[in-house]
Amino acid sequence: MTEAAARSPAPRLHEQLDTLNELLRRLRGLEQLPAPDDSQAFRDTEAELQQLLDGLHPADIAYLLESLPLQHRLAIWQRVKADRDGEILLEVSDAVRESLIADMDQGEILAAVEPLDADELADLVDDLPTEVLPELMASLDAQQRERVQAALSYPDDQVGALMDFEMVTIREDISLETVLRYLRRFDELPEQTDKLFVVNQDNLLTGVLPLHWLLVNSPEKMVSDVMAPDVNTFHPIDDAYETAQAFERYDLVTAPVVDSTGHLIGRITIDSMVDVLREESESEALSRGGLREEEDIFASAWKSVRNRWAWLAINLVTAFIASRVIGLFEGSIQHLVALATLMPIVAGIGGNSGNQTITMIVRALALDQISPANARRLWRKEIGVALLNGLIWGGVIGVVAWLLYDNPQLGVVMTAAMSLNLVLAAFCGVAIPMLMTRMGRDPALGSSVLITAMTDSGGFFIFLGLATLFLM
Amino acid sequence: MTEAAARSPAPRLHEQLDTLNELLRRLRGLEQLPAPDDSQAFRDTEAELQQLLDGLHPADIAYLLESLPLQHRLAIWQRVKADRDGEILLEVSDAVRESLIADMDQGEILAAVEPLDADELADLVDDLPTEVLPELMASLDAQQRERVQAALSYPDDQVGALMDFEMVTIREDISLETVLRYLRRFDELPEQTDKLFVVNQDNLLTGVLPLHWLLVNSPEKMVSDVMAPDVNTFHPIDDAYETAQAFERYDLVTAPVVDSTGHLIGRITIDSMVDVLREESESEALSRGGLREEEDIFASAWKSVRNRWAWLAINLVTAFIASRVIGLFEGSIQHLVALATLMPIVAGIGGNSGNQTITMIVRALALDQISPANARRLWRKEIGVALLNGLIWGGVIGVVAWLLYDNPQLGVVMTAAMSLNLVLAAFCGVAIPMLMTRMGRDPALGSSVLITAMTDSGGFFIFLGLATLFLM
Repeated sequence: MTEAAARSPAPRLHEQLDTLNELLRRLRGLEQLPAPDDSQAFRDTEAELQQLLDGLHPADIAYLLESLPLQHRLAIWQRVKADRDGEILLEVSDAVRESLIADMDQGEILAAVEPLDADELADLVDDLPTEVLPELMASLDAQQRERVQAALSYPDDQVGALMDFEMVTIREDISLETVLRYLRRFDELPEQTDKLFVVNQDNLLTGVLPLHWLLVNSPEKMVSDVMAPDVNTFHPIDDAYETAQAFERYDLVTAPVVDSTGHLIGRITIDSMVDVLREESESEALSRGGLREEEDIFASAWKSVRNRWAWLAINLVTAFIASRVIGLFEGSIQHLVALATLMPIVAGIGGNSGNQTITMIVRALALDQISPANARRLWRKEIGVALLNGLIWGGVIGVVAWLLYDNPQLGVVMTAAMSLNLVLAAFCGVAIPMLMTRMGRDPALGSSVLITAMTDSGGFFIFLGLATLFLM
Repeated sequence: MTEAAARSPAPRLHEQLDTLNELLRRLRGLEQLPAPDDSQAFRDTEAELQQLLDGLHPADIAYLLESLPLQHRLAIWQRVKADRDGEILLEVSDAVRESLIADMDQGEILAAVEPLDADELADLVDDLPTEVLPELMASLDAQQRERVQAALSYPDDQVGALMDFEMVTIREDISLETVLRYLRRFDELPEQTDKLFVVNQDNLLTGVLPLHWLLVNSPEKMVSDVMAPDVNTFHPIDDAYETAQAFERYDLVTAPVVDSTGHLIGRITIDSMVDVLREESESEALSRGGLREEEDIFASAWKSVRNRWAWLAINLVTAFIASRVIGLFEGSIQHLVALATLMPIVAGIGGNSGNQTITMIVRALALDQISPANARRLWRKEIGVALLNGLIWGGVIGVVAWLLYDNPQLGVVMTAAMSLNLVLAAFCGVAIPMLMTRMGRDPALGSSVLITAMTDSGGFFIFLGLATLFLM
């Protein structure tokens, strides 16, 4: 990215979205004319739109495309200069990318991806129509092809899929002066370069030379005197999220990637790590509620139904189970209809409290703060919280139930049921994410649906069960 | 941060936590001896522990402190070298920081913060005991004091509170050769420096010189020939999250901060922006479920109760309202007890579906993808999704209800109620976050509690109301 292109900071983008919507609306009106091309107003609007687009950074265009409904999105996409298509495709979300690629023919796709680097190409390949792949691979030189294939051989959540291959390597037995002269032979350095990688003749990584140290040290010094021998190096099979956490922890900008024998094979940059951190937190938010994947907010209703149906179906099953639990006690309800009125309070408070616990635990697990040694301690604490809340809020609601139905026993049952259901919520709030983790699953996945299922069925059973035992 | 200190990538930290727990357990055992200091085993364990701690990066120690219960946490904290205390305090979460500072006396606190820069100091000041502030401010020189006060004058979510003051400025009328010579007079460059800031004699920012361009261009060239005139500059009152989004969008590493007249006053670095992105997504996850703030997972039960009580209380009120809605129809339930059994299904599915919608909308709002122009379109789509789901799943459950209770009318009422409640969920799922935003509130705040309140009360009312109208 050049500095000049990045003129418009985020706050102003919202206004540009409004302008864009306005221009598109005007164009649509003018297209109704018998011969729109003859209209000066039409040509002016077209020119204004084109100028707006040409002035925007690819990342900004990506944002605007995300924020437009499909018809407008494609109108803009057709007007974007072809040489920027590839960069924009990289920036948009998967769902939007799909809608853009569906609108391109084979020639356009090949032209769009032509300026991309191997690692970027590898990101896109999965989303391209299979027909273009043979021609695309044939258009690459041997080294490029090998790199694309290497990147494709790693799953998306490993460093190997995210590394790039643009790096400056130097030898350790040269002077900084020589390094400075060598760098001047470049037209530009790879983006984000903050250090040079020092390798020996076998391409074994022996250290790194931060640009800072190159600049503050005397040019007569040798690379070997100045370089840092110990570095944060990563392996292509390292977990991407853990690597991103290391970038965050150690304030890294770039880091070398080496194979199992220590040979330098690529590098990782902060911008792809920021994307990993962002995606992780997004997918956590989505999966908590049981959304399968990122959803294009302007996708058709039918597409959204398919994205959301799985957890709704699970929820239907759990709700049906809860309903059958109530069914067991229909006799008691017939006898004392107040039970039907009060039971959702027990279930609801349990669900809310369980969700609070599970949110805390999922976060602590994501930050790797929970070890088997302190799991028991967490249980003790959460159950303590639950008992306190049960006595306080259960007590309040128990008194209310007593006054409302003039039935002190009902109040006592209510308080007892709330306390017990809160304890159940606390227990499951810790247990569910820990179990999911032990089973190698994402602990956030549908956590909200699962905990609510437990506290609903559990709450109904506890409350109606106690009531049947003590009030009938 | 020096490269050498950052040896241990995240994956290995978990093992170090286990080692630490093991060492602390052993120490606790040995402390039971009559004279522990005389025991060779005690001294060895102490030495091993100290060595482990000394080898760790401050960010790693911060992580370990977060992951330890209070007693162990303080045992480690007392063993950490005093000169690293300040850096570690900066890295830990607010809740843990509080527990650490509570364990320090005035002298220790002053020693810990002494090595910190003005912006870092400003981050900590809020958490320090008021007694130490006069002495702390007196220990600063005039420039430092002014910078701390400047940083404190901005709210936490503005750029002004996050900028630092360590930057290299140059004039535009000098050669790159001169710049290179100038840089060699530094012992080290400010962390993350990827560009130099070009200012005139009035300290007006006239451009930036990326280190890359300094390195690849011929030393004879003038700064003015090479520098980029257009830069991403920010103002101290800019929103921190929007600035972080701009960093992400344009792959920035550092950016200048200027006042309203264009004078350079500070800079923003990617590491603080990564923290902003992380905190934003965390607070979104927490506030969704109505947790007030980040919680120390080892905090006392009583502290956790206070953190969580507000939304539990709100939930209690909404659950009570839902219960009163059912109370309106006690006569109908007495007449047909199946209603009590089936009603939680209607409410539960509505809640789940509403939560899916609200999750999507909160995300789109956070990414600034929703404009008034497309709000109506979103409503149309979400209500379309709701109707489809209502017919599909409501139909399934309607048939089940019919078969279960041998009552076709009950099945029809069930299907109709589910469809209507899903439409209500879709409507509120879009409306609640949009309203919150319009009122200047965080749209994620308690969104889950609010939508569930609507779909519970609404679901009971719709189902029991329809049943009363058509089945009684």
